[in-house]
Amino acid sequence: MTHMHNINLLGEDERNLRLRKVTAAMTASGIDCAIISTNVNIFYLTGRIFSGYIYISADGIPPVYFVKRPTDITDQYAVKIHKPENIYDELLRMDIPVGKHIGLELNRLPYNMACRIAAAMHTEPGLNADSALDTARAVKTPAEIEEIRASGLKLADVYRHIPTLYHSGMSDIELQIGIERLLRLQGCLGQFRIAGDDMDIFMGNVLAGDNADAPSPFDFAMGGAGISPSLPVGADGTLLHEGMSVMVDMNGNFSGHMADMTRCFSVGDLDRRALDAHRLSIDICTELQQMGRPGAEARALYEKAENMAKEAGLHEYFMGHRQHAGFVGHGVGIEVNEQPVIAPRSKAVLAAGNVIAIEPKFVIPSIGAVGIENTYAVREAGAADCLTEGPEEIINLLD
Amino acid sequence: MTHMHNINLLGEDERNLRLRKVTAAMTASGIDCAIISTNVNIFYLTGRIFSGYIYISADGIPPVYFVKRPTDITDQYAVKIHKPENIYDELLRMDIPVGKHIGLELNRLPYNMACRIAAAMHTEPGLNADSALDTARAVKTPAEIEEIRASGLKLADVYRHIPTLYHSGMSDIELQIGIERLLRLQGCLGQFRIAGDDMDIFMGNVLAGDNADAPSPFDFAMGGAGISPSLPVGADGTLLHEGMSVMVDMNGNFSGHMADMTRCFSVGDLDRRALDAHRLSIDICTELQQMGRPGAEARALYEKAENMAKEAGLHEYFMGHRQHAGFVGHGVGIEVNEQPVIAPRSKAVLAAGNVIAIEPKFVIPSIGAVGIENTYAVREAGAADCLTEGPEEIINLLD
Repeated sequence: MTHMHNINLLGEDERNLRLRKVTAAMTASGIDCAIISTNVNIFYLTGRIFSGYIYISADGIPPVYFVKRPTDITDQYAVKIHKPENIYDELLRMDIPVGKHIGLELNRLPYNMACRIAAAMHTEPGLNADSALDTARAVKTPAEIEEIRASGLKLADVYRHIPTLYHSGMSDIELQIGIERLLRLQGCLGQFRIAGDDMDIFMGNVLAGDNADAPSPFDFAMGGAGISPSLPVGADGTLLHEGMSVMVDMNGNFSGHMADMTRCFSVGDLDRRALDAHRLSIDICTELQQMGRPGAEARALYEKAENMAKEAGLHEYFMGHRQHAGFVGHGVGIEVNEQPVIAPRSKAVLAAGNVIAIEPKFVIPSIGAVGIENTYAVREAGAADCLTEGPEEIINLLD
Repeated sequence: MTHMHNINLLGEDERNLRLRKVTAAMTASGIDCAIISTNVNIFYLTGRIFSGYIYISADGIPPVYFVKRPTDITDQYAVKIHKPENIYDELLRMDIPVGKHIGLELNRLPYNMACRIAAAMHTEPGLNADSALDTARAVKTPAEIEEIRASGLKLADVYRHIPTLYHSGMSDIELQIGIERLLRLQGCLGQFRIAGDDMDIFMGNVLAGDNADAPSPFDFAMGGAGISPSLPVGADGTLLHEGMSVMVDMNGNFSGHMADMTRCFSVGDLDRRALDAHRLSIDICTELQQMGRPGAEARALYEKAENMAKEAGLHEYFMGHRQHAGFVGHGVGIEVNEQPVIAPRSKAVLAAGNVIAIEPKFVIPSIGAVGIENTYAVREAGAADCLTEGPEEIINLLD
């Protein structure tokens, strides 16, 4: 790999497209300028991660990139810096007016760091640039959608090979390790970015049998006990046996932009209820894909899904059984939990460019989790575009 | 796995041992009580992760555990809660006096969350409970040291099998994927916890040849370009070839308490300078292990290591070549970057119970990185105790 000296790996058009969305959202929130310093937002704005700060002005002045590390960036818009306390004077030196209303990433920055950056800018934390960034990032550019589609193709390809990993007597963990290896060989980066510090997971979730019903501390669609109380989610060492469903929801990050996809496998034949619930999950996805158009209310999609579960008499198993998740879908891109959230109290209205993972899942006691998840891009017109194409039926590992 | 209804998985003695260290550090910082809500500190205090808050009083009142999720915890000291705004009234209801000087995790909590919890406690953020927790966590209990030793044994066992993974023509990534699989089969949890949001890495670092010299944005001892600008660290697809060193520094988290260990491999014989630098790394480790006693200054250890590199004429390769890391060691436990840091300006004084990873590494141009890393526990008397025993010489993958 050659060393990259240009701070912007996106190309100028793509960079400007993203920037215009961010500055529009900043202006709408009364933010004159912002200091951006978290990895995910730096990646969004430049296509790379560096340690430092980006100064963004809402009025169209080109961003200034303050770089701590790596030391080999020599871009014309990059300023070497050692600490945030130097930003203000550097901006003055460059004759760049510093706006009065400065936004910081207040949902992401640790309290002390937010205070430190604010003090360095001669202000106090107050305006939340994270909301503007989240709003901008919720509407993907065409290039971002293609990145997610490319991740989806690779993820789907790995899923097709899952049956080859199965052998009699194996545990959920062994199956998961096999999938992890296929993913990594396919180019999966492994890193699984989640907004907020409260959720941990390693490369996704394989849930077999009743472990799908183990309540988790984390706000994922499904839980699982995990193999350690230090990581109480996912596979727990359950031995796969006949009559059990195995839900696979693994890491689809191949480029920094991830696809989210779940498929369901079975050991032998499953009980009628499980088959019905799985069929219903596919039907809900189809229905929500049709509804997923610009102007649709996120909560209407949730209600539709929930009503379909009620009508089928499967409501008590919908999105968990002993513990229920409070959503049926979520935005996905650089992080797995982006805007919009498809939940009962969501105020979001879908827009072209939203990329949402829809995951109507059911936990059937003594069988396990069934259902699918696809990632869809909302288009200008027509039903949403599925970015995770692949067989949706339950695949019998014994066949 | 049976479902656990007791909030404290540590046993009462261990729980109290940790708690006493925390409350002593709180008292020393003028903190009456603290609200703890991050995964790592909740894990430290209970041996498990849940979503919620722990109320700790410095004056010895038993902690109160406020649990949002999972929903199946029924411990006598656990209070079901939906949001932090309920904490204050619940404490009043339980006749628990709320201290005036309330500490929050201000290095870890996002700004908006810190403000929200402070407001819920009718105060403002100001006192940093993170310092108290970091201080307490820097001095491991005997049980914690045994957890780290157990992780070290498993990690060392995987390292012994690395030569079996080698085949001619393979890339650094392929080797890394093989190691990841062995680690996971051995029980490695995968999750790699790093304090602060600015550092990303997936399951550790395999650095072959000149990729070890690629500057990284992250503050690890070594860099590497990585395979994606969204994760610019580590293996970059370099094909392994003769005369190249391959440094392996992989994830040693088997229980929530991790060991940190690096070993060096070669494809065929290495150049004299590389062998000398590797020998020096072992010597520095031996020397720092001897110096690592209660009362020793962390910076004296760093100076010793740096002086040994200078005396050997290897200073320009010490801790990197194109870009240098500013430390030679660091505390390790639940996170990979705990206190104390072994760095030039550190004010830390070693204490019995500190667990530190010492990693004097060298990057030799056109060969790669050499050196080792061991995790040591500082004892009451005598040299530090090595928790990552295993052959330290360079292992030739062609043998």
